[in-house]
Amino acid sequence: MTLILNLKDVEQAINMRTIIEHIEQGLVEEYHGNVQMPPRMNMPTNNQGFFRLMPAVMNDSGYMGFKAFFKSGPRVRYLIGIIDQHENNLEAMMDSSYLTAVRTGATTGLATKYMARENAKTVGVIGSGLEARTNLEAVCAVRDIEYVKVYSPTPQRRELFATEMSEKLGIRIEAVDSPNEAVDGVDIVNVCTNTSTKGNGVAFEGKWMRKSMHVNSIGSTMPTMREIDTDSFEKANVIVIDTKHLENESGDVLNAIKSGQYDHSKVVELKELVVGQKVRTNEEQITLFKSVGTAVQDIMAARAVYNEAKKLNLGTDVGDFLEAKMFN
Amino acid sequence: MTLILNLKDVEQAINMRTIIEHIEQGLVEEYHGNVQMPPRMNMPTNNQGFFRLMPAVMNDSGYMGFKAFFKSGPRVRYLIGIIDQHENNLEAMMDSSYLTAVRTGATTGLATKYMARENAKTVGVIGSGLEARTNLEAVCAVRDIEYVKVYSPTPQRRELFATEMSEKLGIRIEAVDSPNEAVDGVDIVNVCTNTSTKGNGVAFEGKWMRKSMHVNSIGSTMPTMREIDTDSFEKANVIVIDTKHLENESGDVLNAIKSGQYDHSKVVELKELVVGQKVRTNEEQITLFKSVGTAVQDIMAARAVYNEAKKLNLGTDVGDFLEAKMFN
Repeated sequence: MTLILNLKDVEQAINMRTIIEHIEQGLVEEYHGNVQMPPRMNMPTNNQGFFRLMPAVMNDSGYMGFKAFFKSGPRVRYLIGIIDQHENNLEAMMDSSYLTAVRTGATTGLATKYMARENAKTVGVIGSGLEARTNLEAVCAVRDIEYVKVYSPTPQRRELFATEMSEKLGIRIEAVDSPNEAVDGVDIVNVCTNTSTKGNGVAFEGKWMRKSMHVNSIGSTMPTMREIDTDSFEKANVIVIDTKHLENESGDVLNAIKSGQYDHSKVVELKELVVGQKVRTNEEQITLFKSVGTAVQDIMAARAVYNEAKKLNLGTDVGDFLEAKMFN
Repeated sequence: MTLILNLKDVEQAINMRTIIEHIEQGLVEEYHGNVQMPPRMNMPTNNQGFFRLMPAVMNDSGYMGFKAFFKSGPRVRYLIGIIDQHENNLEAMMDSSYLTAVRTGATTGLATKYMARENAKTVGVIGSGLEARTNLEAVCAVRDIEYVKVYSPTPQRRELFATEMSEKLGIRIEAVDSPNEAVDGVDIVNVCTNTSTKGNGVAFEGKWMRKSMHVNSIGSTMPTMREIDTDSFEKANVIVIDTKHLENESGDVLNAIKSGQYDHSKVVELKELVVGQKVRTNEEQITLFKSVGTAVQDIMAARAVYNEAKKLNLGTDVGDFLEAKMFN
């Protein structure tokens, strides 16, 4: 049978801690090698749109699936399909407009768990959109955060973020007037912006990095997109990335490679951390996590949602609508 | 809204002539250039399985979509999703186990319409499976066929084919004892086999080709699969292919390239025929059509089914289950 899950179903089935655990499990499998994840297909369409496809096959667990997302004008829709190899069954197709932001956050949470100081208590957030919210939620799931500062260019938006997220997470959150004020003195920085659509500037600069700080940056997922400057890569003692594909996809990384500030010898993949590689060797180091998202993250997040949705009896069961045909 | 169509829905919504017309329209668009169709992704899985993805974007008509198919053990499932660019809507997701065979047949029908002699009356079929059926049906949709001979190795299967297809198409069909008997004296040959699973032999040999014959071959869709010999390529005066990708994908073509019998100067793409290029310049020529299938064929066939399904009120409407999110 195939379960169809809309946004409301997915929202009800989301548990941030469970999704972080699922993504961690996916990365362990990825580390051990029996995972195929080709570079995403990206096809431009009319009207400033695109059609993108990201598949993954995980042969140890038998999970596989794809994300398809397509944009026309200012709007984008996201679909994830998950397949159980053993049963050869399309288990679910779900809306992943919100889930994509949650899995990005969850991956940041996972990186933060392995990279930030154990006793980190404060977060500076740059950005106030959906990703800024899910990334903060995930960091709060892995550290005992007590205080958050948030900056984004529009005062009403940062104030709304502070009010709503403070209520949701039960911690003190203040909106501040500048990005350097937001990051001043904090243990963890989350840069979660859409700078590509607002000129050539970046939202975070390496000169603001202080010893022992951990920085997460998730907003430069295409060559045209920027959010942190190239100095950030030089100043970080360790750089962790969620996938090697990012070295061809993220504008931030492409620019740092070009300027000679992306030192490959200090770059580690997140999948190495979840099997025990230590990257923070002392309290004073500056650490940087860069992500663009992967199909394994999508599929594992979708699996967590699917399992929960079945327990809660959510969604529309459209039956076994794909025939199992003899392969001739 | 998104319509879910299972096998029964799709079967009810299939009209071979309409599907041939839709594929022709897709090929005209492909010829004029604003179509993106990357090589299919093919990922092996456990248990002799695979996961394949074929997308296409058609920017003139605004149609796009993908086929996902996955095999485990002896069974395979096929999903097609179609998207309307203008509305940015996932219009339908449908079973395409049967539809894939129908679109392969329809493409053969289209090629036959442009390649076979106008007064062709007889067909020799090699193979008796689903593809043999849909390909014969499609040829009968474009020529006034009066008599068909069929060969496949298992007597019961070829007899069943003759009985069932004779009833379905209202023409005389005879099962014969050998492949060369099946093709002897006929105007059109359809080679529709699964020879890869049965050793290294081929099902059709160039020495059986006679002047004015048109041959369709659709069964060698992977480098490991064979159904016609390399002499067939040398003996044909004209070769038409459904996509250039086939020169990397079809075992028949790869072997003919290797043996030096695939003369690129006599190879034409099907999309050139639908905009007016003549390939049969006299009655005596031998013509060969080779296909591996493309995402444009899938999407256009699926669109024909979707339009008909809406008219007939078929399928399960799961609503607008994908959110239209502002792209940030």
